[in-house]
Amino acid sequence: MEFRELLNSKAELVNQALGAYMEHEQNPQAKIYEAMRYSLLAGGKRLRPAILLMANEICGGDQEQALPFACAVEMIHTYSLIHDDLPAMDDDDLRRGKRTNHKVFGEGIAILAGDALLTKAFEIIAVWDEMGLPPERRIRAISILANLAGTEGMIGGQVVDLEHEGAGMDVETLEYLHGLKTSALIRAAGTVGAVLAGAEEKELQAIDAYCYHLGMAFQIQDDILDVTGSFEELGKPIGSDAENHKTTFVSIYGVERAGELVSEYTKKAVDALAVFTGRAQVLVDLAHDLIGRSA
Amino acid sequence: MEFRELLNSKAELVNQALGAYMEHEQNPQAKIYEAMRYSLLAGGKRLRPAILLMANEICGGDQEQALPFACAVEMIHTYSLIHDDLPAMDDDDLRRGKRTNHKVFGEGIAILAGDALLTKAFEIIAVWDEMGLPPERRIRAISILANLAGTEGMIGGQVVDLEHEGAGMDVETLEYLHGLKTSALIRAAGTVGAVLAGAEEKELQAIDAYCYHLGMAFQIQDDILDVTGSFEELGKPIGSDAENHKTTFVSIYGVERAGELVSEYTKKAVDALAVFTGRAQVLVDLAHDLIGRSA
Repeated sequence: MEFRELLNSKAELVNQALGAYMEHEQNPQAKIYEAMRYSLLAGGKRLRPAILLMANEICGGDQEQALPFACAVEMIHTYSLIHDDLPAMDDDDLRRGKRTNHKVFGEGIAILAGDALLTKAFEIIAVWDEMGLPPERRIRAISILANLAGTEGMIGGQVVDLEHEGAGMDVETLEYLHGLKTSALIRAAGTVGAVLAGAEEKELQAIDAYCYHLGMAFQIQDDILDVTGSFEELGKPIGSDAENHKTTFVSIYGVERAGELVSEYTKKAVDALAVFTGRAQVLVDLAHDLIGRSA
Repeated sequence: MEFRELLNSKAELVNQALGAYMEHEQNPQAKIYEAMRYSLLAGGKRLRPAILLMANEICGGDQEQALPFACAVEMIHTYSLIHDDLPAMDDDDLRRGKRTNHKVFGEGIAILAGDALLTKAFEIIAVWDEMGLPPERRIRAISILANLAGTEGMIGGQVVDLEHEGAGMDVETLEYLHGLKTSALIRAAGTVGAVLAGAEEKELQAIDAYCYHLGMAFQIQDDILDVTGSFEELGKPIGSDAENHKTTFVSIYGVERAGELVSEYTKKAVDALAVFTGRAQVLVDLAHDLIGRSA
């Protein structure tokens, strides 16, 4: 299978499972599912679930067992986008070419839809499965996810971002910020996938390092696309970082050097996979695919 | 030990453990811990943790194993208060005699502090403990907590509340709303405590029914205190429900009938404990104690 086909097949699998998790009774709170669905099923690359499933497969895992965790990571990613877009945060009106959640459902429901996706993420992976996944792996996976989504992970990054709003920051702080805000949840995806498969410690560390560097490359590419991309491809206005006086890798280094950094981080990501001696080719392909993206 | 002493000793135990969970490095995101601590350690009755620990004890559990879960329930309760107080929700300036979280830290940090407490709740209970709590009980407890804190529980109640803002509602909807918004997390506390202790199914159901009715009595008493209480005792302005045109048990039934409903729900709560044949006296005492509260 071509790499793009593989990526699309993983995304399709995840989309179907996410849709099933959003089924519900027609009860008085049904509006919340509408708001959750709106953002959860708005497309998107499904990068994190794909990494989780690929890392799981490389380490010898069972895709069916890993799928709920892939969905949980995407729910957490989506909740973070809904809350990040709120007026009290980035105050964005558009996301993936659609109006942001609070623009459609109001701020109150948008806050609750984020809360609900975060809560649902833990609900769908806290399942007792006597014949399947060993409970030790399940509990460790929940622990990793909560840790890397929390104050020492993704939320920590968002706090640093908010604290420096309009004030600028040095490159060390920017690296620290994106190591948390972007890389942490990607690391959660990769390491959860590996843990569920019962990966060895050195494999786990390799996946973790890959994900950290891939996340940094991904974020810098995002910064570049905010300058060089198009509204049609990104589904949101171009130049918003500059307009919001955000410190980015592009504002510090310029587009050309930022592009070199993407290549350098990508190389480090790929190099981290050496321990798999070729078995992790799909993650190598993913890293190279992301460099060339235009959205 | 007198009942009040017992309740205070449980609260003290929980307060110490919560304080320990809030220790952190002096890193660039340290502000988030300050915001989490501010609301988490702002006093409060610690009703939900007390119910969890008491239900656990009655069913023969180990208090040390149950304590992290008691803290997790209180973290979830606190996150819900922080988000409920936001301008997009109830827009409250005071809580327990202190300024609300967003009034002190700003809306962005308040949203993130809520997100972080919710995430931390799952982190502190997702611990592999080979020699202690059986993993089946741990996973079931996580599942119950996520379910009753989510769209079919506490968040669902908040959605119904928000959807009817300023529009009024009938008594069936009001009962449904509080069954979710108030009772669901109390049910989570009681049933998680029981599950951790390996309670029998009929004990679990008894605790669940107790918690549902106790939660309803608690909420109606809250509605009454909003009319008859004092600013000094409640730590927030009196009459805010009427000012916000909120439908309450008092606005529908008046103070006198609402008081009778508190007694009726309390009796149902106590009656549900019959299966314990006297072993649940502490929960009976708790129900009676809550009727007489003035804050």
